[in-house]
Amino acid sequence: MSQQKKSPDPFSTFNETIETKVFIIGAGPVGLFAVFMCGMAGLRCCVVDSLPHIGGQCQALYPEKSIYDIPCFPDILAKDVVSRLSEQIKPFSPRFCLEQQVQSATQQEDGRWHVRTSTGQNFLTNSIIVCAGSGSFVPKRPPLHEIETFEGKSVFYSIKNKKDLSGQNVVIAGGGDSAVDWALLLQPIAKSLHIVHRRDRFTAQEHSVQQLKQHIDQGHITFHPFCQLQDLHGQNGLLEHVGIVHKEQGYRTIKSDILLPFFGLQSDLGPLGQWGLNIANQRICIDPTTGTTNKPGIYAAGDIATYPHKLKLIMTGFAEVAQIAHHLKNYLFPDRFFAFKHSTSSGITKDLI
Amino acid sequence: MSQQKKSPDPFSTFNETIETKVFIIGAGPVGLFAVFMCGMAGLRCCVVDSLPHIGGQCQALYPEKSIYDIPCFPDILAKDVVSRLSEQIKPFSPRFCLEQQVQSATQQEDGRWHVRTSTGQNFLTNSIIVCAGSGSFVPKRPPLHEIETFEGKSVFYSIKNKKDLSGQNVVIAGGGDSAVDWALLLQPIAKSLHIVHRRDRFTAQEHSVQQLKQHIDQGHITFHPFCQLQDLHGQNGLLEHVGIVHKEQGYRTIKSDILLPFFGLQSDLGPLGQWGLNIANQRICIDPTTGTTNKPGIYAAGDIATYPHKLKLIMTGFAEVAQIAHHLKNYLFPDRFFAFKHSTSSGITKDLI
Repeated sequence: MSQQKKSPDPFSTFNETIETKVFIIGAGPVGLFAVFMCGMAGLRCCVVDSLPHIGGQCQALYPEKSIYDIPCFPDILAKDVVSRLSEQIKPFSPRFCLEQQVQSATQQEDGRWHVRTSTGQNFLTNSIIVCAGSGSFVPKRPPLHEIETFEGKSVFYSIKNKKDLSGQNVVIAGGGDSAVDWALLLQPIAKSLHIVHRRDRFTAQEHSVQQLKQHIDQGHITFHPFCQLQDLHGQNGLLEHVGIVHKEQGYRTIKSDILLPFFGLQSDLGPLGQWGLNIANQRICIDPTTGTTNKPGIYAAGDIATYPHKLKLIMTGFAEVAQIAHHLKNYLFPDRFFAFKHSTSSGITKDLI
Repeated sequence: MSQQKKSPDPFSTFNETIETKVFIIGAGPVGLFAVFMCGMAGLRCCVVDSLPHIGGQCQALYPEKSIYDIPCFPDILAKDVVSRLSEQIKPFSPRFCLEQQVQSATQQEDGRWHVRTSTGQNFLTNSIIVCAGSGSFVPKRPPLHEIETFEGKSVFYSIKNKKDLSGQNVVIAGGGDSAVDWALLLQPIAKSLHIVHRRDRFTAQEHSVQQLKQHIDQGHITFHPFCQLQDLHGQNGLLEHVGIVHKEQGYRTIKSDILLPFFGLQSDLGPLGQWGLNIANQRICIDPTTGTTNKPGIYAAGDIATYPHKLKLIMTGFAEVAQIAHHLKNYLFPDRFFAFKHSTSSGITKDLI
């Protein structure tokens, strides 16, 4: 029991493989309720999340927003959904492993899955429930030939240290807040600065846009409106020119050492997309009545799961994990018979496997 | 608005057909949440229930019992589920028609359904959502040839006035609480009293069983253990003899004016079973992702709905009515496009159709 309750510390367990019956990916509301329903089924869970806290997007993105369609709550704040679920799962003392992303999952001969996360932590689990919401948010990559060979050397989607770009010929692509803010920050230190945008206006803070326009008018920044990125030229990952196309004037190139595409974020399944699961539109295909995927022992629920007519509602995810917990018990213990019991009769089980 | 809020009065509207877009059968938790989800979809509902109050079984059978698997409630009393849902649906001012059972539903040429209830009230609706829980509870009938011709004249499953049985030859079948209690109550006034039971012992309050045994020992009551009802003899619904079979000694008859079978209750779909819906094990077959039945415009959700792996959990019913409300909007308005919106963005719509 003491092992289950200690706070997550990747170092203390770095070389120790954690064994569990149920491994849940994602500590958002659906992942938390999966802990509860598995607990009611007598199963203890291990939960991993890339964020440093539980609650997923509800806690990270809109904690103070009201949700109106949680049954029995005319109005509840997203953060309160999280705190109430956290209270509800306490009897089942799940083990949380936070601030780490699942990298790989490999099925062993005995049917169990070997899971490895970004901190190097290893897990051995009989089953996996993916409750990863929209997946990870990653920058949108422009669809340019061989862009991957330039990424990390000449093409960057985020900037760790702006001094690295000092004295460079920089091309920024995009017209949103990131494009405008970084243009203003880099203009004083870059050798040259070009902005490539498919429109002629920016969608950013008015004050910043005015500042940018002044730089453009004064010739400190070259603006290419109505243009899109076309191709990259260079060798060994080192960029020399960026090719762009104007919607009327056609193709031209810009001398460039660095390209910064700021096209916003998109959700991405990340390594989950490489597990051989059936995927449709970046989501995992499940049987809506059991939550099963095409891989035995792997289930999915909530926004990351899909099937015809699927609704992305929290309560839909709640119902899905109930189905999963029920199915899982029979998957893990095929030789036993489990009668369906209402919680009014069974109460809260504390004797977990 | 005032019309929506007035208390149900079948007489004031007896001859007036009530028109609605959505007609919900059953005012239990799932029926109430159907009102909410339809409201969020911009649809006002009319709800009918056989009980004199909303809340269904939660309110009628176990109001003080704790439910542990409602998401975000570590522990909630059944009656509080009802009162909170009642609060949540207030903005959508549903019309409740209580203390009446749905008798018939006939589809008109224009696709709408004409529904008639036990009070004679008529409804015209574009759609029906059946959230009738376990259906109605009715006494279990022994499978005896032509028993229906005796029912209400010589065969009774409940007793309104025990004096009606004064001076009669009474046969009680069964060995549970009802059988034992009624034997004790009727013994002083009946001309003769026989108990037919398939076992040799009773499952009732120990004190009552002791009293009964004394009457049997003293010859006031004749007990036929290890016997089952076989047939009924009589004319025009008036019973003369009841035939019984002993498991070893075979067939014999008992002189009898009245037969009281007390074999407990079973749930029954009632008239719903005659609507041509696909039924399996007394439950309505639905597509789990839409709640649709085989009849266009008729949906079902909650305990009365079934599909492979169905769980009889309140939250499962909640998720089902969310699917239904979404499908229903497109069914009712096939020419319009409805974008899916989260309640955090849309808030509560008050502009209902």
